Amino acid sequence: MTQAERKPDASARAGALTRPIHGVWSPTLVPVHEDFSIDVERFIAHARWLLAQGCHGLALFGTTSEANSFSLQERMALLEAALAAGIDPDRLMVGTGCCALTDSERLTRHAVDNGCKMVLMLPPFYYKGVSDRGLYRSYAQVIDRVGDDELRVLFYHFPRLSGVPITVGLIELLLADYPSVIAGLKDSSGDWSNTADLIERFPEMCIFPGSERYLLDGLRHGGAGCITATANVNPSGARGVWDAWASGSNDLEARNDRMIQVRTAIEAYPPIPAQKFLIARHRNDPAWRRVRPPLLDLDDRQGAELLESLAKLDFTLD
Amino acid sequence: MTQAERKPDASARAGALTRPIHGVWSPTLVPVHEDFSIDVERFIAHARWLLAQGCHGLALFGTTSEANSFSLQERMALLEAALAAGIDPDRLMVGTGCCALTDSERLTRHAVDNGCKMVLMLPPFYYKGVSDRGLYRSYAQVIDRVGDDELRVLFYHFPRLSGVPITVGLIELLLADYPSVIAGLKDSSGDWSNTADLIERFPEMCIFPGSERYLLDGLRHGGAGCITATANVNPSGARGVWDAWASGSNDLEARNDRMIQVRTAIEAYPPIPAQKFLIARHRNDPAWRRVRPPLLDLDDRQGAELLESLAKLDFTLD
Repeated sequence: MTQAERKPDASARAGALTRPIHGVWSPTLVPVHEDFSIDVERFIAHARWLLAQGCHGLALFGTTSEANSFSLQERMALLEAALAAGIDPDRLMVGTGCCALTDSERLTRHAVDNGCKMVLMLPPFYYKGVSDRGLYRSYAQVIDRVGDDELRVLFYHFPRLSGVPITVGLIELLLADYPSVIAGLKDSSGDWSNTADLIERFPEMCIFPGSERYLLDGLRHGGAGCITATANVNPSGARGVWDAWASGSNDLEARNDRMIQVRTAIEAYPPIPAQKFLIARHRNDPAWRRVRPPLLDLDDRQGAELLESLAKLDFTLD
Repeated sequence: MTQAERKPDASARAGALTRPIHGVWSPTLVPVHEDFSIDVERFIAHARWLLAQGCHGLALFGTTSEANSFSLQERMALLEAALAAGIDPDRLMVGTGCCALTDSERLTRHAVDNGCKMVLMLPPFYYKGVSDRGLYRSYAQVIDRVGDDELRVLFYHFPRLSGVPITVGLIELLLADYPSVIAGLKDSSGDWSNTADLIERFPEMCIFPGSERYLLDGLRHGGAGCITATANVNPSGARGVWDAWASGSNDLEARNDRMIQVRTAIEAYPPIPAQKFLIARHRNDPAWRRVRPPLLDLDDRQGAELLESLAKLDFTLD
């Protein structure tokens, strides 16, 4: 039994609540117009709704935002629009990790210059099998070039899509040289044993499972919350689990089970098209269904099946 | 035995020589300064040397160019500098396939507007497991948006790095709708049976193995030549095989064997750092060794081993 596993709930609770970055974060879907350009107005309405539904913050420009399908200009313009609309920069975590060093540098500087100090960084993901030293150099170059003491970097570990894992060795190298900058990690591996290992090894970091499936397990082991795509369609479900855990409520397990059932139903389908489909349905707004190539909109048959399986759970969007 | 295999050498020869795009193409290494910015002067000298050594053309901004490690601005500026220096646009094949539709569109338009009509396009490579229809939509959108009748698209199939294969189904979809635009494919799978299958299925396309290892096999089956990284350090070797094949020379097999031995020695090391190391050594110019993060320069021990194995082959750069 590890130290984290022995930790009683109450102290783990205090741990997560006092972490500098914590809670239920939603990687935010980005709606697009018919020409696949970003639909800023619908985006801002959705971002506000997610925060109103209880998300502690929004991860903008991760996988769920289709971030890599948009140009740097499109990404920077959307961030500026969100801030201009009054979204609090302290409740944003901005995805800035690109294949090109100069792109990661540019997006990271743009984020911090606009008051967004938390960035969620994919490793450069074109070359595979690169060394920890090479990846170290990529992250270190961005941190040095941006040169902002308030910058906080969270690693984005999503090996199935990036093909480039964030290893323990890489984290150690960067923590040694940038202890105040390296702040956390989103673990989208779907492998709970990896998440648990990271939480135990790096107690100074805010470790977020990439799915609400492991929100509660994570909290009990010293995790910081979760950053989960399906918070786009079930934000209050995930927030409800957080609150029940934070207050020690009796309905914690029941809430957790239900939240995981909803997640399971949704993740049987391509996640981004499925969630856009659900929002389109909920808001009676077919424009929301669109995804940018290379993704495809959820087809009608899949949509009907998904609605049926959610109806069996008696689940509707709030 | 397939139709291509039955084809006698002479007619295959005529086939490759009359293809609109053919020969030995070098995906060009891109040297960088100490701050990792592109070293335009060294690049242009190298590009000229490759053409003088017999390369039919240069593939600029594929994997070997570390293309995805540079921003769009850096890529466009280098192409403009190369053209301003007098590099013939008909001898350039420009890599323009990015993760973001709008980036692929921008680079492709920039290339054709600058007279470079041949583009080598990676599929959008962040999302994995995407459908042929989704990839079709990505390529079709770029072709439609650029809207230039002279545009010629070559697919860049490199599944080990992109994680997104170019399938027969995708090629069929695009050929059906854009028969004059879809011009060819570079097969960097390293799987000769895949290359042979594509040559047989798509006789209207210019199919290039991504290694000189399959140059001769390809030519004998109806391939168009090769686009091979190691042409950066052995351009005359690959061109020599092409010429021996085109003229029906007796020393064809001996030349081919030797070229493949050199390739084998080099590919035992990380290919981009190893080739930059060899050019640095050849030109007595250590600056050439640098690669951009996340890659790492070849270390001294690897460099010494590589030189030793090439010395055993009595190989030196021309």
